[in-house]
Amino acid sequence: MKLPDFKTEQWMNNYETKAKYNMTDTCVQPLTLQDLISMDTNHDLEKIKLDYGTITGDFRLKQGIVSLYQNGTIDNVTLTHGCLEANQHVMDTILEKDDVVVTFTPGYQQFVDYPKSLGCIVKEVPLIEENHWQMDFDQFQLVMEQQPVKMIIINSPNNPTGTLFEQDVMDFIILEAEKNKTWILSDEVYQGIGTDEVKISDIYEYGISTSSLSKLYSCAGLRLGWIKGNEEIIQRINVRRDYTMISTGPLIDTLGNIILEHKDELIERSVEIVKKNQEILSEWLQSHSKFSIEMPSSGTVGFLKYESSIRSTELAKFLLFDEGVFFVPGSCFDCENHLRIGFTAKHEDFAKGLELLGSWMESNG
Amino acid sequence: MKLPDFKTEQWMNNYETKAKYNMTDTCVQPLTLQDLISMDTNHDLEKIKLDYGTITGDFRLKQGIVSLYQNGTIDNVTLTHGCLEANQHVMDTILEKDDVVVTFTPGYQQFVDYPKSLGCIVKEVPLIEENHWQMDFDQFQLVMEQQPVKMIIINSPNNPTGTLFEQDVMDFIILEAEKNKTWILSDEVYQGIGTDEVKISDIYEYGISTSSLSKLYSCAGLRLGWIKGNEEIIQRINVRRDYTMISTGPLIDTLGNIILEHKDELIERSVEIVKKNQEILSEWLQSHSKFSIEMPSSGTVGFLKYESSIRSTELAKFLLFDEGVFFVPGSCFDCENHLRIGFTAKHEDFAKGLELLGSWMESNG
Repeated sequence: MKLPDFKTEQWMNNYETKAKYNMTDTCVQPLTLQDLISMDTNHDLEKIKLDYGTITGDFRLKQGIVSLYQNGTIDNVTLTHGCLEANQHVMDTILEKDDVVVTFTPGYQQFVDYPKSLGCIVKEVPLIEENHWQMDFDQFQLVMEQQPVKMIIINSPNNPTGTLFEQDVMDFIILEAEKNKTWILSDEVYQGIGTDEVKISDIYEYGISTSSLSKLYSCAGLRLGWIKGNEEIIQRINVRRDYTMISTGPLIDTLGNIILEHKDELIERSVEIVKKNQEILSEWLQSHSKFSIEMPSSGTVGFLKYESSIRSTELAKFLLFDEGVFFVPGSCFDCENHLRIGFTAKHEDFAKGLELLGSWMESNG
Repeated sequence: MKLPDFKTEQWMNNYETKAKYNMTDTCVQPLTLQDLISMDTNHDLEKIKLDYGTITGDFRLKQGIVSLYQNGTIDNVTLTHGCLEANQHVMDTILEKDDVVVTFTPGYQQFVDYPKSLGCIVKEVPLIEENHWQMDFDQFQLVMEQQPVKMIIINSPNNPTGTLFEQDVMDFIILEAEKNKTWILSDEVYQGIGTDEVKISDIYEYGISTSSLSKLYSCAGLRLGWIKGNEEIIQRINVRRDYTMISTGPLIDTLGNIILEHKDELIERSVEIVKKNQEILSEWLQSHSKFSIEMPSSGTVGFLKYESSIRSTELAKFLLFDEGVFFVPGSCFDCENHLRIGFTAKHEDFAKGLELLGSWMESNG
């Protein structure tokens, strides 16, 4: 099954290590293993036997995951290696050749090109910058009416725009979806710090939530994600897991336990980091009129707009090689005149990166 | 994409925790995290930052993996979460609907039902017990001549029969394969302790070796596997990894490093455990004429034959519930009158399990 290059990931792979000021990282500053060990009071980490562990995932960890939602039991949850793999498992389990999939762009490339690789027809509904990056509602309704849709894929908050699909928008989407029992896969990996976040698996029978410990919990290196959905689909995904991964293993499960036992303090840390960087950006924008942003209410990323004739790929390369300032260009999302910005860096680095962006643009833009 | 239940894995999931004497475990007795920590002299484990790490895998780890082969560089290797996922990535990358796949049975169900789920035509060539579980050579040649074959899938040594595909057999297979540049995927996860082991990626341009640290290295819980193949296919698999897993993460990569830095002592430990259990079995067989086995020269599993009218599923259930003795029944491999036996248990447990099997059969068989 053929797949094109994943533009954002390739960009990160090729250039991220050259960054002095990483202005685009989606993960809040990573913890160390020592940070987790020092938080641990309940687990005998060193005694962990490195066998397959509990195949569908450690029970306490699954209880910890359930506690992030409004409803459900451990039978509504299964574990994966990260949220990306969670999405893959959901798509592989449900989608067949010629199925129609609806998703929103600019968005994460996995949601367009992965279903296409399975032979699906993917319809992209635009998110409109002029309307606070909300979707084109008419267009959405139109594609939903054209022919039966097997799956709607949402990323809430969305990478790169930061769009949060709030309750009223979700209600609108569900109203269309339930006519044909359309599955809604909602990648909620950027949730955690917003106040109006909606988790699809809490409110819709055919809604599947995916997430991980990578972004707001600062532990991408554990590669621990999960899927929450109705029991029947979790059971089908578990059948597939026997062919593809077996388990996430007792070490990672136990470290995941420690994180969720300390979720409140970790989220508090992330809120502080993200919100303060957003304040720094807002202040900087006041004196840099070529730039603007629809500031996200949730998540760790936004889509910084700039006015200039320079292409985003070139701009991002100049910034990196001239100044060590690293962004993902809008071109990776097929959307020019934008840079994806992450609010996760150390405050002083974030401020310095903005300063260098501003002065480079003033001299060259 | 639909998949049937994975019979062996389901059996393990349902019953393994009830075992008192686990006679079917494929992994040599697992290490603990403490075992790894106490082996470590070069790595500052606690300081590991839990970010994504090096996306295609830690360089030193990949060098350690390359050292297990006769040739290749780190560009011939990429990492996955276990060997099962390695196999999945290879199949997902290469196979398309209607491709013809050839594999050998009795064998691991992934190699039959996973390609079927991708829409492939799967042709099964039998392994013949009367011929030391070697393949039916005529049948193999016949299916290779019928129509172009996209991929041959080998498991060497094979689960459950223990068949090692030695040099002369490999040469025979490659001779057929190279006529149409047929890919050979060789799952070599059970290699490590045999003397005549052949790694397909060392000897054939379109040969892809997969393996992991689960079986002979006693660390299934790390879920660390890899793929070795030509640079072009590794590059294609790396593109796919961006959509499905990103990385294995720096913690697991570092622990993998420690294991491969101590590979000789770990393999020595596994040889001692497996060979001694095989001796215990050989001795036991001398006084239990209803049982026989083609003793494998490599790997951790074999296929124990018994003479009785009792079906293997029933036998395995009786043994478990009456005596706490746990086997995977031949029925999980569509092959009656057999039990899959692993040579990995503690010697006293292994001997006790055999004793209970013998006495149960004497009373009930």
